Amino acid sequence: MVTVRALTRNRVETYMQLAQELRTMPRREVMARRQGAIVASLFYEPSTRTRLSFETAALRLGARVVGAENALENSSAKKGERLEDTLRIVGSYADAIVVRHHENNTLAEVASLCPVPVVSAGTGAGEHPTQALLDVYTLERELGRVDGLHISILGDLRYGRTVHSLLYLLTQFNGVVVTMFAVPGLELPSEMAASLAADGLRLRTVGTLEEALSETDAVYQTRIQRERLQGEDALSLAGLTHLGVEELRRLPSHARILHPLPRLDELNPELDHDPRAAYFRQAENGLFIRMAVLDSLLKEGIS
Amino acid sequence: MVTVRALTRNRVETYMQLAQELRTMPRREVMARRQGAIVASLFYEPSTRTRLSFETAALRLGARVVGAENALENSSAKKGERLEDTLRIVGSYADAIVVRHHENNTLAEVASLCPVPVVSAGTGAGEHPTQALLDVYTLERELGRVDGLHISILGDLRYGRTVHSLLYLLTQFNGVVVTMFAVPGLELPSEMAASLAADGLRLRTVGTLEEALSETDAVYQTRIQRERLQGEDALSLAGLTHLGVEELRRLPSHARILHPLPRLDELNPELDHDPRAAYFRQAENGLFIRMAVLDSLLKEGIS
Amino acid sequence: MVTVRALTRNRVETYMQLAQELRTMPRREVMARRQGAIVASLFYEPSTRTRLSFETAALRLGARVVGAENALENSSAKKGERLEDTLRIVGSYADAIVVRHHENNTLAEVASLCPVPVVSAGTGAGEHPTQALLDVYTLERELGRVDGLHISILGDLRYGRTVHSLLYLLTQFNGVVVTMFAVPGLELPSEMAASLAADGLRLRTVGTLEEALSETDAVYQTRIQRERLQGEDALSLAGLTHLGVEELRRLPSHARILHPLPRLDELNPELDHDPRAAYFRQAENGLFIRMAVLDSLLKEGIS
Repeated sequence: MVTVRALTRNRVETYMQLAQELRTMPRREVMARRQGAIVASLFYEPSTRTRLSFETAALRLGARVVGAENALENSSAKKGERLEDTLRIVGSYADAIVVRHHENNTLAEVASLCPVPVVSAGTGAGEHPTQALLDVYTLERELGRVDGLHISILGDLRYGRTVHSLLYLLTQFNGVVVTMFAVPGLELPSEMAASLAADGLRLRTVGTLEEALSETDAVYQTRIQRERLQGEDALSLAGLTHLGVEELRRLPSHARILHPLPRLDELNPELDHDPRAAYFRQAENGLFIRMAVLDSLLKEGIS
Repeated sequence: MVTVRALTRNRVETYMQLAQELRTMPRREVMARRQGAIVASLFYEPSTRTRLSFETAALRLGARVVGAENALENSSAKKGERLEDTLRIVGSYADAIVVRHHENNTLAEVASLCPVPVVSAGTGAGEHPTQALLDVYTLERELGRVDGLHISILGDLRYGRTVHSLLYLLTQFNGVVVTMFAVPGLELPSEMAASLAADGLRLRTVGTLEEALSETDAVYQTRIQRERLQGEDALSLAGLTHLGVEELRRLPSHARILHPLPRLDELNPELDHDPRAAYFRQAENGLFIRMAVLDSLLKEGIS
Repeated sequence: MVTVRALTRNRVETYMQLAQELRTMPRREVMARRQGAIVASLFYEPSTRTRLSFETAALRLGARVVGAENALENSSAKKGERLEDTLRIVGSYADAIVVRHHENNTLAEVASLCPVPVVSAGTGAGEHPTQALLDVYTLERELGRVDGLHISILGDLRYGRTVHSLLYLLTQFNGVVVTMFAVPGLELPSEMAASLAADGLRLRTVGTLEEALSETDAVYQTRIQRERLQGEDALSLAGLTHLGVEELRRLPSHARILHPLPRLDELNPELDHDPRAAYFRQAENGLFIRMAVLDSLLKEGIS
């Protein structure tokens, strides 16, 4: 599971349904499912939240975990070992490997050389497939469907790997309309927009936050890495997509606010108590989606 | 459990009694207590010994552990995520969270926003509640009581968070007399001394190591961080509270030597074989106190 | 288990036999063997592959693991704590401790002060006992015996701890002949050669790669750390022992290629599909040898 491009709608539905089942089953029953399996988690780029989410998912299934919190600094990668060698070796110990990698494409290129299933936990500015799955699962849970939704995406559409993965996954659904309001300079790359349109996704660009917030079902806010912005106006530009109580007056009452987290100041904590704020529930949904992905990949029982 | 200030005597006694029970129960029986629970350990300030003590405590109860050895460097904290966001998210995966934090007060301020119990594993120069509990548990085990003990504290009374937490916890006991012999410049802050006295603790200051060692029931030695000492005389000043075989001639035969460890040269290894040297037993007691704390906080059974 | 020097042939045979049994037993049965035991893994020098191999070995036996991925940076060692203090304290939590240490001899000197068994996972430029065991186990599995084998060792015979441990272990077998082809400047230290010869190992030096590859049963390739080589000719010298498809024409068809991994360019990936390439199987063998070592050291059952 190293790219959303390989996910069919059917597969996505299956993951969402399994996530839902695992959420409601008694914990002890869930823990009996993958007893004795070993999951390795290799984070070449540290990310405590994503790692803990995956590792907890494995443990909740009864599997056991070995991991590297900072594999680039603390491992043979520093001595120059190629990722495919590491995957082959770790794949002879473990029953599945979760990898966060700092390069965009290396993981997708070499994953097939690993003797056990590999799950991407995000790759450079490339993809973050389980994030896209949990985003879609959150839309489904919060709004009852994904087909036909109007989704507004704010902030950084250029570098954010979560946005890119989500957009590719949304092409699997029917009639989704995506409204984009990017910080100037952080617009969606035009080749990607063309590719998404060719896959049937309806994309439109608006010039004000107001337009993005009215008549939408879900706002997807993103974190802007300041170092991406050049020049004097950077700070004020970043503020263009800020969401606070004032801005939310324009958001329909049935709509939801999503964010892949961590957030900086683009999402005011004063919103946390608003019932439309779905981002903490979204993070929790990630645990169940990752359980569903790992459960599907791990062999049934360990003989 | 983020501050000793919230611990009543009754609660302390309960923890000590439970620690004692968990120590003597068959291991298999203990491991059945919290089967299936997930404990997250987030160390924003690395501390291998304390982390391993907490994580072993969780595993011995049958829980499973996800952890971050160096959460400040390796996590979203570096991207600017606030601790309360991290706790809310990790609290949606885990059943309890152990946190070591580098700032004095942040953890105590935000712990209540976390949906699951939070345990402090030490905060900056602030508190170290489980260390204080294990110190008191060690006094109880080694000397049969805490009430009425004469305790001498040496070295760094200014910055040592373990000393501060211990002193606050001792206010819960009756008739304790604390004798302080600090390295010059590292005396107990006067406001803290006033606050402790107001809570009924009897504090006295002596001018020589001999006075601190004679007529005492327990000597609490501390590590002095050289960088705390200014000026030329630093090294010789640090040596004032050194404990070796020679100094111990003055210590009553029933008395005990405690130290939160790690030690540098303030505690000569030649003392290790002296039956009064209780510091390694003290470290071991920490495991059982932490088991008692985690056992109390984790829900009974996981449905 | 901190040095191969203390391993008798009988003990080596026992480990290999147990490794073989653990490999073929049903996983569930193996996982019942050391249920409830706690293994601590302390890596003062990061090494993800070796650590994951040991930790997986412990988990596969049913034990649970607490670990430090980067113990030197993240622990009291930084505050100056001596290794023996750490081992005494961690030894009061855990039932066995796996240690990778950056110094050559410290671990062997202090391991006996630890209250529980200590296993070396490699020490500086000193030893790597379980690597030597898995090397010998690989020879046995691939070639049916160790006695009487002709083994060619290439590359760095001076600093490589895996080579040193393997050579010492081979003195326990009969009639082994070792052919050495070192990069100039990286020859086996003469005192070590004398010591090995005194223990009955037959060592010979050849001047060309061709001689090392013809008439041998196993080639043991090693990684050369560029920084070990001085002067302008370093790169070309390092290339002297390079193995590719061309060089392998000289290797007998029954022979095997071993490598402790990670590899750099001294072992061309084009060899990976050659049936004589045993290095990935060798890495997998490490898991079972480490299971055998840990299983032997952990107390039977945990009461």
